[in-house]
Amino acid sequence: ADVQSRPDHRNIDIDKVGVKNISYPIIVLDKFNGTQNTVARINIYVNLPYRHKGTHMSRFIEILSEFRRNISIKNIPQILEETRHRLHAQSAHIEMIFPYFIQKQAPVSRARALMEYICTIKGSLNGEGLIDLVVCVKVPITTLCPCSKEISSVGAHNQRGEVRVQVRFKKFFWIEDLIRLVEASASCEVYSLLKRQDEKFVTERAYSNPMFVEDVVREIALKLDKDDNFTWYSIDSENYESIHNHSAYAYIETDKRQENRRSKPAS
Amino acid sequence: ADVQSRPDHRNIDIDKVGVKNISYPIIVLDKFNGTQNTVARINIYVNLPYRHKGTHMSRFIEILSEFRRNISIKNIPQILEETRHRLHAQSAHIEMIFPYFIQKQAPVSRARALMEYICTIKGSLNGEGLIDLVVCVKVPITTLCPCSKEISSVGAHNQRGEVRVQVRFKKFFWIEDLIRLVEASASCEVYSLLKRQDEKFVTERAYSNPMFVEDVVREIALKLDKDDNFTWYSIDSENYESIHNHSAYAYIETDKRQENRRSKPAS
Amino acid sequence: ADVQSRPDHRNIDIDKVGVKNISYPIIVLDKFNGTQNTVARINIYVNLPYRHKGTHMSRFIEILSEFRRNISIKNIPQILEETRHRLHAQSAHIEMIFPYFIQKQAPVSRARALMEYICTIKGSLNGEGLIDLVVCVKVPITTLCPCSKEISSVGAHNQRGEVRVQVRFKKFFWIEDLIRLVEASASCEVYSLLKRQDEKFVTERAYSNPMFVEDVVREIALKLDKDDNFTWYSIDSENYESIHNHSAYAYIETDKRQENRRSKPAS
Amino acid sequence: ADVQSRPDHRNIDIDKVGVKNISYPIIVLDKFNGTQNTVARINIYVNLPYRHKGTHMSRFIEILSEFRRNISIKNIPQILEETRHRLHAQSAHIEMIFPYFIQKQAPVSRARALMEYICTIKGSLNGEGLIDLVVCVKVPITTLCPCSKEISSVGAHNQRGEVRVQVRFKKFFWIEDLIRLVEASASCEVYSLLKRQDEKFVTERAYSNPMFVEDVVREIALKLDKDDNFTWYSIDSENYESIHNHSAYAYIETDKRQENRRSKPAS
Repeated sequence: ADVQSRPDHRNIDIDKVGVKNISYPIIVLDKFNGTQNTVARINIYVNLPYRHKGTHMSRFIEILSEFRRNISIKNIPQILEETRHRLHAQSAHIEMIFPYFIQKQAPVSRARALMEYICTIKGSLNGEGLIDLVVCVKVPITTLCPCSKEISSVGAHNQRGEVRVQVRFKKFFWIEDLIRLVEASASCEVYSLLKRQDEKFVTERAYSNPMFVEDVVREIALKLDKDDNFTWYSIDSENYESIHNHSAYAYIETDKRQENRRSKPAS
Repeated sequence: ADVQSRPDHRNIDIDKVGVKNISYPIIVLDKFNGTQNTVARINIYVNLPYRHKGTHMSRFIEILSEFRRNISIKNIPQILEETRHRLHAQSAHIEMIFPYFIQKQAPVSRARALMEYICTIKGSLNGEGLIDLVVCVKVPITTLCPCSKEISSVGAHNQRGEVRVQVRFKKFFWIEDLIRLVEASASCEVYSLLKRQDEKFVTERAYSNPMFVEDVVREIALKLDKDDNFTWYSIDSENYESIHNHSAYAYIETDKRQENRRSKPAS
Repeated sequence: ADVQSRPDHRNIDIDKVGVKNISYPIIVLDKFNGTQNTVARINIYVNLPYRHKGTHMSRFIEILSEFRRNISIKNIPQILEETRHRLHAQSAHIEMIFPYFIQKQAPVSRARALMEYICTIKGSLNGEGLIDLVVCVKVPITTLCPCSKEISSVGAHNQRGEVRVQVRFKKFFWIEDLIRLVEASASCEVYSLLKRQDEKFVTERAYSNPMFVEDVVREIALKLDKDDNFTWYSIDSENYESIHNHSAYAYIETDKRQENRRSKPAS
Repeated sequence: ADVQSRPDHRNIDIDKVGVKNISYPIIVLDKFNGTQNTVARINIYVNLPYRHKGTHMSRFIEILSEFRRNISIKNIPQILEETRHRLHAQSAHIEMIFPYFIQKQAPVSRARALMEYICTIKGSLNGEGLIDLVVCVKVPITTLCPCSKEISSVGAHNQRGEVRVQVRFKKFFWIEDLIRLVEASASCEVYSLLKRQDEKFVTERAYSNPMFVEDVVREIALKLDKDDNFTWYSIDSENYESIHNHSAYAYIETDKRQENRRSKPAS
């Protein structure tokens, strides 16, 4: 009674079919500690050709169970190949979203604690055997409003923001380095643990470095433009405005493979 | 085949049974406009005595459909009575969570726009016929850190916070007035629409009025202590810290009916 | 001190900049009642050419305030034109997500109550003046597993699922009709209010109509393929499996403008 | 400039002040594997007497960093003592919410995979030095409707539900055992990995074991009543109805320390 394998007469291919929103403990590569234990929310799919009625969902869980102790952008292609093979499919897709922790030192006291960054690895293997990998990091930052600083006799409104950067790339890179690039592109970076002398430092640093949400995405774009390892990127930044109950938002996407989008005359 | 009405032999009363997380359009009382259309997420329950196997879930939906065009803290008792009656129960409970909109004027330009406040009305009617009503409002605010202001040569970190106030009360009051009380207890209030002159105003106002999360809940407690209409309250405030990726939090609860919690010697 | 209008020297265009996640009460067109009051979560953006430092965020709120009482896929182009004009931009984008309520009759008792459907309208106006509109509806459904029915001596596992359909189209259509099309493509549709005779009906109907998540998306695709008004669509269905703690998922996307994706030989 | 330590003149005690919603990797005790790595969302608070203006937020993070590799209900009292001591407070509170994974075997094929259960540990140390510990587990289950089964000629609607049990207790227990108790109290338990023979088993098992949401909470209450280690409990169960877009819900709370709530005459 293999109902799934029966023929289907509607003549319609399905692009993706599989398992969504399964939570699984995984072990990922860590630049400073070798590996890191975390918990991922995972989606894993294959295509389903028009002739078959259904896919075999339990096999996705078996694959996750086998690979979960060794996850990195290095072996996503292998996981995708295995998925495509075992599901008798032409294409395979995986998305893994997980908190990743990096130890940070406070800027003056050097006190250390862990910071959480939500990371996503997305991989697709298509019918021609081509792999498409996208890595996404979410990085909390501080922004201080340039307009507020200029027009106000004292102070300036500032707030937590969240930057989300997605990249396609040529060769392996450490997500720690991409996170650092983003943190260096804000009014100030954000910490888990700050002592009094650190709080003075971050307050003054943000005040001396006012940035709109527009400035944040442009600064990051400048840096990603210069790094040849990144062939495509999207950047968005959302400011949880301290003076409003909504967000200010900016978005840039650049595909270096198709065009030199930055070759405009400087008016 | 009324399976629900059959006897149950486990001899266990159920405190609450009913319908949870139903979304329904409602019309609520509005201080300035008479009524306001919004959308509520609703839970509605009754008790179930040990002798019956189940309750009749569809009746809850019928009651919501009848009353949805006229919701206010004034008629919650009637809805609860009707629920208890139709479900043949001793007690009844309702929770309605909905966005409520108030028109605000910017402080200098007087530009007007709507601000959203998430409100909750909770009502219980117990076996002795006593009604317990709790109203909750969530109010976004700005806080500016007193420590950061004092130790820094320029600026001070500030952020959006969210205050949640729950009250029990003697007689009808307007949630608009409770929201105003909270907004007047922060470093500055938050707006949907601010022009440049307003942004200068709110920046300077917050800077001149630094408050910890602890200060916010105490200021609100002082005011609620003075208002005899409120017989019980809880206040919490969560600051979405601009320098951290977590929140600072403070909570005060006072039951005026049981004790005079404030009668401590001023050290 | 119009800081936003100052020149920027980084030479980087921003694709989208604006206001995200503002909640606003709106009035939308309703097939059966003329109009309907609801509450939307709204994002509204414009592009920002490389020469300007920032955009003027408060203008987005002014535009929402003016148009909020008259929202439909008919006047999104006008809102986008106005946004582009007032922000001195080349392109404009809007996304409005809102609960939409339709009265449904139970299948046997004819008892009536409201059902919520989460709808999204997305519109873009690009630099050439072309409008791109996408309408999305989320429709809860019941699915009953064909494999479980076939292999089990009695019963079959079934569950709530959620279908999300996005469409591009040639001319105005009622979202009520798109929702009906989806509800007719599941093992059974879902209701707010069912009496006992209705519960018998929906149970037996689902049992007589077993469908995998794959079947659901294919049935909907067949119908959307046949309707010439839809020029592009994506369909996904997520089954909140009653036997698992994760979802079964399927996805189909078809662009009728580019290719006749369905012109495959019926093996 | 220790602003926090300054006197406050409003004469208002704060019940809880501290850090909310910090995400941190932790290591917890595991019945079968010794320990388990997971990621917790943590709130940690102390009281603040009326005489002080503020608390010292950074110390909470230092405490979490020290204790994070060894978390269990056994050492929560020590963490609370340390928190109270370092913050110069009278009371301390901690809440840790984390996914916990247990390997399950499918009922027929014996195929193994991990299941996620969301667990919470809440601890309070009050001014008299008394510790109050509450453990909460969320357990996904299957329920099959007794009414639907009885009135329908074939099939019966069933769905995923989620049970949440909170307990107070006398001595250490394994959360694995509490989870098993809940899983044995539903129409059927839920698995991550089921092969075809397992799917037949769980379908038939649920059909032969119909339970309302009311039955689920009563079955669990019966078992918790009999176990003397539990001195207080609350149980709720939420059924994500397959025939509705809302949930059926039931709740029982029993405090064995205050009363023998079950001493009613069996009508």
